Amino acid sequence: MAGICTPKPKTASYAVFWGIRWLSAQPFTRMLQVSRRGTAMPMSPYRKLTPYADAAKQRGVGVYHLNIGQPDIETPPAALAAVQQARIGVLEYSPTAGLPSYRTKLAAYYQRAGMPVEAEDILVTAGGSEAIFFALMSCLNPGDELIVPEPFYGAYTAFAVATDVRIVPVTSHIENGYALPPIAEFESRITPRTKALLVCNPNNPTGYVYSRQELEQLLDLCRRHHLYLLSDEAYREFCYDGNYVSALHLPGAAEHVVVLDTISKRYSACGARIGAFVTKNKALQAVAFKFAQMRVSPPGLAQLLGEAATELPDSYFDLAKAEYLARRNRMVERLRAIPGVYCPTPGGAFYIMASLPIADAEHFALWLLEEFQHDGHTVMISPATGFYATPGAGRNEVRLAYVINQAAIDGAMDCLAEALRQYPGRIGA
Amino acid sequence: MAGICTPKPKTASYAVFWGIRWLSAQPFTRMLQVSRRGTAMPMSPYRKLTPYADAAKQRGVGVYHLNIGQPDIETPPAALAAVQQARIGVLEYSPTAGLPSYRTKLAAYYQRAGMPVEAEDILVTAGGSEAIFFALMSCLNPGDELIVPEPFYGAYTAFAVATDVRIVPVTSHIENGYALPPIAEFESRITPRTKALLVCNPNNPTGYVYSRQELEQLLDLCRRHHLYLLSDEAYREFCYDGNYVSALHLPGAAEHVVVLDTISKRYSACGARIGAFVTKNKALQAVAFKFAQMRVSPPGLAQLLGEAATELPDSYFDLAKAEYLARRNRMVERLRAIPGVYCPTPGGAFYIMASLPIADAEHFALWLLEEFQHDGHTVMISPATGFYATPGAGRNEVRLAYVINQAAIDGAMDCLAEALRQYPGRIGA
Repeated sequence: MAGICTPKPKTASYAVFWGIRWLSAQPFTRMLQVSRRGTAMPMSPYRKLTPYADAAKQRGVGVYHLNIGQPDIETPPAALAAVQQARIGVLEYSPTAGLPSYRTKLAAYYQRAGMPVEAEDILVTAGGSEAIFFALMSCLNPGDELIVPEPFYGAYTAFAVATDVRIVPVTSHIENGYALPPIAEFESRITPRTKALLVCNPNNPTGYVYSRQELEQLLDLCRRHHLYLLSDEAYREFCYDGNYVSALHLPGAAEHVVVLDTISKRYSACGARIGAFVTKNKALQAVAFKFAQMRVSPPGLAQLLGEAATELPDSYFDLAKAEYLARRNRMVERLRAIPGVYCPTPGGAFYIMASLPIADAEHFALWLLEEFQHDGHTVMISPATGFYATPGAGRNEVRLAYVINQAAIDGAMDCLAEALRQYPGRIGA
Repeated sequence: MAGICTPKPKTASYAVFWGIRWLSAQPFTRMLQVSRRGTAMPMSPYRKLTPYADAAKQRGVGVYHLNIGQPDIETPPAALAAVQQARIGVLEYSPTAGLPSYRTKLAAYYQRAGMPVEAEDILVTAGGSEAIFFALMSCLNPGDELIVPEPFYGAYTAFAVATDVRIVPVTSHIENGYALPPIAEFESRITPRTKALLVCNPNNPTGYVYSRQELEQLLDLCRRHHLYLLSDEAYREFCYDGNYVSALHLPGAAEHVVVLDTISKRYSACGARIGAFVTKNKALQAVAFKFAQMRVSPPGLAQLLGEAATELPDSYFDLAKAEYLARRNRMVERLRAIPGVYCPTPGGAFYIMASLPIADAEHFALWLLEEFQHDGHTVMISPATGFYATPGAGRNEVRLAYVINQAAIDGAMDCLAEALRQYPGRIGA
């Protein structure tokens, strides 16, 4: 066989050769199909449980909703009034980057918080969601990698699928309150495809608030490896122990940091769909602006609400924070009184992660809705598996949101304690 | 050299082999960069001219804006009142698919127009833009092809880049009013990568309204080749000559048709950012819903406006249409009186495409803003090249929007006539 070149098995060129043969041999017929990326999109984990919660209510069982991130605190009337009293003749497109008056006042809000943000650094978005989308589209190519400490906000997975980005998780642990994992673990995950790190601070779902030192380590890593640091700061105003540090507070942040922001939690205005993409990196801002042009403008009416909200007195947050703090303390106290339950004290946001004496929180969550009641009530919880990218991680953990009042928290904790006594899958005595 | 296998140049396996060699030989260093897709995103053509319009205004020259698609007609006060008089305690996330009450009333609006739409067929979106985005993400894979008659709405190009879809244009022509090109031209563009056709009806930028027969031809083609038919019906209510046919009016549309809709033009509410993704294809609707979950909910306040608008009396459109019709007729009449100008009579929307006795509308548009004035005024026009995917197509064409009142139209036409007399680049006597 001298002189004849036969393809060798198990080489890249061999696979490509036969792949092309296979493709060209396909007949030119097909069915009407949805896209592969549409098929790959995850369904929100909440939705799996919702029909069971609805069924429980149908049976007359009251459901304490500890599963949602929808604040129950009143939207500030003065901010709503700005929309409701505005004189509007034609509800025109706003400028693509948002109303200039809003961007100016939002910059002043950031400046009061010590962040060196100018109006031109701000792109107003349709919620924090659109800011995340613009960031992934602008910073990463298809197939690139985004390092994220897990557990993380479940929608990041959906945005990663939609933008063809690969999430590379670094696991944080309940034992130290989900503190930042050692920076060496982040560094070991960096490949030529890594383009950015994404942190949520204060964290959803853990409630952990990153320290200045932790953030400096992350930024230093990003600077050494030419990565973006995407900082989701949706819960900025809800820190209960000590001062909050934004990624934009750090020296050297200008080129690397993008703050992803929203008024949803800050002003109990989730339905407004107003957020912001904030960076001092001009080249990146210019690219994000092109994605923003595609949808012409962010929501118009709700920008008036956002603008008025920047002028609320500081006491607005004092009241909201005092209420959330009292709820956090009450829920932590009640959880710790339940045998076999462990939870750190979260420093921010309005979530508590707890480990339960069970093997599978998804099964337990379903059992709570289908088979349990206590004094006519049960609780709906978020199994933590939906917040982990690593298969099997966090199976005995749940996220509990304290967006219900203190009496309801007591009722929910009564239910949970009793449920863990009765649950057949309970581990330990 | 017997027995030694040397790679042969110009084969796929050779290129792959050396490609891998080259990649692995790259040093592991790089700069902080924006994404390739961000770089590939087009800048809106309007933005190129805007600084020149601003400079003209600075010099004291009045600018008639024929370049924009922002209606000047008042947003219906009754619809605005629904937002401004609503009692809102907590501005919560709306359901992902939109408020049930709005979806029900919107379905009734479609039913009154003879379209067999139920509430469950509707996904409320952040403007028509988000409906386009969901459609491309749900129907096409990266690298797939979308056939679109050109000229077309410029943002389609941006959505195609953002979703990694290739637009394959089929050119329509001013000589027959931009009617649908022969169906054989569409069919000849179909490849194994073709997944959908996209039409805008009534058309932006041409104002052409597709006939029932044309739409049936398109649907038949889609049925034979297992393609989706995406129908952007933003201008549905603005047809001036005869009845309007929606793609959802056609028999056999259920599996194939997605209507991309918006209240922006219909109710002069561009700033609301409320649209809809409408299909009776359950599998496709389920996939689009997953993309919608990613951003949790559409804008909340403006859904109240959209809902109230569905209850406006039919006379609302009668008044708006009468005004647009009078403007269209006036502008067509004035254009045709200018030597060397040709324009069809558009049947819908609020745009007129015209060919001018010039070689390069981009140069002419710039000249109008930089060097021309007549009685202290000039006009801003949209060069049509931004609406064509075929390089060089439409260079002597412009899009003119009649979203200014009739006196302003007369002033603008005076300017245009005089400009074409003076323009050094004029072709012909």
